[in-house]
Amino acid sequence: MLRKSSTVITTGKDAEANGPLIALLYSRRDGVDVAVIPARFVNAQRNAQDGAVRRWRRGIRGRRFHASSARSAACGDGAADDNRKSCLTAMTHAGSRLLDNSVFTPERLTMHDDVRSYLLDLQTRILGALETADGKPFLRDAWTRPAGGPLEGDGATSLIEEGRLFERGGCNFSHVRGKKLPPSATQHRPELAGAPFEAMGVSLVLHPRNPYVPTVHMNVRMLVAKPAGKPEAAWFGGGMDLTPYYGFEDDAAHFHRTCKAALDPLDPGYYPRFKTWCDDYFFLKHRSEPRGIGGVFFDDFAEGGFERGFALMRATGDAFLHAYLPIVERRRALPYGETERDFQAYRRGRYVEFNLVWDRGTLFGLQSGGRTESILMSMPPIVKWRYDWHPAPGTPEARLYEVFLKPRDWAAAA
Amino acid sequence: MLRKSSTVITTGKDAEANGPLIALLYSRRDGVDVAVIPARFVNAQRNAQDGAVRRWRRGIRGRRFHASSARSAACGDGAADDNRKSCLTAMTHAGSRLLDNSVFTPERLTMHDDVRSYLLDLQTRILGALETADGKPFLRDAWTRPAGGPLEGDGATSLIEEGRLFERGGCNFSHVRGKKLPPSATQHRPELAGAPFEAMGVSLVLHPRNPYVPTVHMNVRMLVAKPAGKPEAAWFGGGMDLTPYYGFEDDAAHFHRTCKAALDPLDPGYYPRFKTWCDDYFFLKHRSEPRGIGGVFFDDFAEGGFERGFALMRATGDAFLHAYLPIVERRRALPYGETERDFQAYRRGRYVEFNLVWDRGTLFGLQSGGRTESILMSMPPIVKWRYDWHPAPGTPEARLYEVFLKPRDWAAAA
Repeated sequence: MLRKSSTVITTGKDAEANGPLIALLYSRRDGVDVAVIPARFVNAQRNAQDGAVRRWRRGIRGRRFHASSARSAACGDGAADDNRKSCLTAMTHAGSRLLDNSVFTPERLTMHDDVRSYLLDLQTRILGALETADGKPFLRDAWTRPAGGPLEGDGATSLIEEGRLFERGGCNFSHVRGKKLPPSATQHRPELAGAPFEAMGVSLVLHPRNPYVPTVHMNVRMLVAKPAGKPEAAWFGGGMDLTPYYGFEDDAAHFHRTCKAALDPLDPGYYPRFKTWCDDYFFLKHRSEPRGIGGVFFDDFAEGGFERGFALMRATGDAFLHAYLPIVERRRALPYGETERDFQAYRRGRYVEFNLVWDRGTLFGLQSGGRTESILMSMPPIVKWRYDWHPAPGTPEARLYEVFLKPRDWAAAA
Repeated sequence: MLRKSSTVITTGKDAEANGPLIALLYSRRDGVDVAVIPARFVNAQRNAQDGAVRRWRRGIRGRRFHASSARSAACGDGAADDNRKSCLTAMTHAGSRLLDNSVFTPERLTMHDDVRSYLLDLQTRILGALETADGKPFLRDAWTRPAGGPLEGDGATSLIEEGRLFERGGCNFSHVRGKKLPPSATQHRPELAGAPFEAMGVSLVLHPRNPYVPTVHMNVRMLVAKPAGKPEAAWFGGGMDLTPYYGFEDDAAHFHRTCKAALDPLDPGYYPRFKTWCDDYFFLKHRSEPRGIGGVFFDDFAEGGFERGFALMRATGDAFLHAYLPIVERRRALPYGETERDFQAYRRGRYVEFNLVWDRGTLFGLQSGGRTESILMSMPPIVKWRYDWHPAPGTPEARLYEVFLKPRDWAAAA
C-alpha cells in the first residue's frame, strides 16, 4: 500500500482538538484508503520514546477515522475506485481544504506524487537521524495555504532551537502552487516567466552550537511550469554545501567524496560539473568570498527527462546524512570558548548576507509570497557584524580564509 | 572662501606618515587654493577636546602645504585662475589619485561640487553632535576607488562600535562614478539603465545599545545619469525613519513633526506625500509589517530642477539632528534588562531582512560593486532569529506591534 498523497486539514472539530490534521491518501489495488492523523505525529520517529506518540500510533493501527467522528473522510478497506471521488468530496464537505483536487487524478499520481512521497519520506528519515544525534525532538509545524491566494499549498516545517547539538536549524517540506512564476525562478527560462507553476522540495539548514561543527545546507526541489497552451516543463534543482568556521581538511574531503560517490553511478561527469557550479553559486560577490568549502549544486536540470531528474534528486537527498553526520560526530565534543563562539557569530553574518542578497531559493520564496518563517529557518540564531574585521595572521581564524575559503578539489585531496 | 571639492590621497610620503590625506580645493575670487590635511582630522569636531586635533588645526591655520613637502600640491593665496590646472597637475604628479579631473571644470564646480560640499559639511556637523552625545569618537576611514574599476570615486566612512550610547552605527559620505547604472537605481527610469552615472550622498544608521532608544536611519543622495548623446539627468533621494523597539507616542510625534516643519516651508504638500511614501517603502512585504514608525522618504525627485532637489536634500539633512537627538536624550538613561536586550536583538533581525532583501540603496551599492563594509555599516551589532515568535498579549513587546507598527498620522497625534 503506497502512500500517494497527503493534504492538511485545519478546520473542523478534530482539528480544533488536535491541531492541524493530515489526511493521507493510500492507493490500493482495489481502491483508496484515507487515514487522518494529527500533523504533529505524522513525521514522528517510528521508535520515538514519547509515550504519547506510541500510544496514539497503537490507537490508530487497524482503525480508520470516520467522516462523522473526525469531520473528515475515511474510506474503509476495499473501497472501490469509484469511491475515491466521494471520499474526497466527503473530506471537503467535512471542512478540510483540498487545495487542488486535480492532484488526485491518476496521471498526476504517477509523476508528481512519486516526488512528493519521496520528499516526505526523505524528510522523515533525515529528521529521525538528526533527532537521534541531537537528543532533542524537532518542533513540527504543518501549514497550509488555502486556495485563492497568490500561493497555495501545504508544507511541514520542522525546526530545532536550543538543541544540544544544533543551536538552530530546520528541515522543511513544502509543496506550493502559484499563478505566476517569479523572475528569480526563471532567469534561465525567460519564456516561462509569469506562467502558473508548482514547486515542491525539501530544504535543510543546520547551525550547530559548537563552532568546530560546520553549518550545512541541503536542498532538493522540483519545479513545474504550466504555461497556457503549452506542455508542462519540469526541472530539478538541489545540492548540499558545507560552511565551516574552523576547517578540517578531513571533513572537507569526506563531504566532497560522499557527494562524488553518490553522483558517479548516475554519470561520472555530474560531480565535477556540479562541484564547480556550487563554488560559483555559493559565492558572496559583494565580498569576493566563497560561502564555505562548497559541495554540489545543480539547477534548471531537465536533461534526460523526468526520470533522470528524479534520480538525481534521490541520489542527492539520500547522500546527505552520510556526508554530514560523520563530520558532526568527529567534531561535536571538541572544547571551545568565547573566542570561537564570537568568530562563529561573525562568520554567520556572511551566511545571512548570502541567503538574503544572493540566494535564488530564498528570493524565490520571499518574492512569491512563500511562508516567511519556514524560509528564514536558514537564518542563524545569533549573528554579529563588526566593521572591516580581519583575523590576525597565524590564528586559527585566519586559517579559515587562507586554506578553506578557496575553491579546491577536495575530493582529490590527499 | 567656499570649499568646492576634495579628493583623497592615499600614496606618497605624507600619506605614509599620516594615513590618507584629503586635498581640499577652495575657490577664491582670484583663483583657487588647495590645502592638504590628514583624513582622520578633516571631519573632526571644531570644538573637539582632543588636543592633537586642536594643535594640528592651529598648525595649519595660515599655512599651506607645499608640493615638495607633502608630495601633493599647494597653491598659495591669490593663485591665478590659470594656476588651477597646474595645481591639479602638481597634485597628480605628487602621487594623489585625481579620479576624474573633469569634476574640477568650472561648469561642474557650480553644481555637483556644491552638493559635495554640502554633504561633507553635513557629515561633519552630524558626527560632531553624535560624538558629543556618545562621548566616544567615531572611527574615520577615508577610502578611494581608483579609476578603471567598475566603480571609482572616494568616500569617508565614519563608524562607531561599542560606544557608550551607540552599540554600532555609521555616518558615511561617498561619491562614486560608474560605467553602468544598475537596475536597482533605475526602476522608474528604465530608459537610463546601463548609462554612465555619478552618485553622491550621506547615509546614516545608528543602533543604540539601550533598547528604549530607537534605531534611526537618514540618507540624502543625488544621482546623475549621463546617457551617451543625451543630456545629463540628475535626481535626488533621501529621507529619515525611526525604528523603535519600545515605542513612545511622544517620540513618534516629535520625529514626524520635525520632518514636517523642515519640509513645509518648501511645499506643504511634501510632508504628507513623503510620509506616505516612507510608510510604503519601509515595509517588509514578506512579513506584511512596517519596519518602524516611518518618517519621510522620497526618491527619483527631479521636480523643479536641480535647485529644488538640492533644497529638499538640505532641508532633510539639516533636520536630522533636531529630529533624533531629543529622543535620544529622553530615553538613554532608562534602565533595561536582558528581556529588553533580547527583544531588541530579535527585532533587529527585521532590520537586516529589510536592508538586505528590499532596500534599494543597499542593493544599488552591492550590485554596483560599492564598498561592502561601508554599505553594511547598517547591519546591527548583534542579531537574533527565532522561529515564529510572537510577544505575549499585554506585554510591552506586544505594544510595539499593536500601537507602533501600524501606519498612523503621528504629526497630528494628540
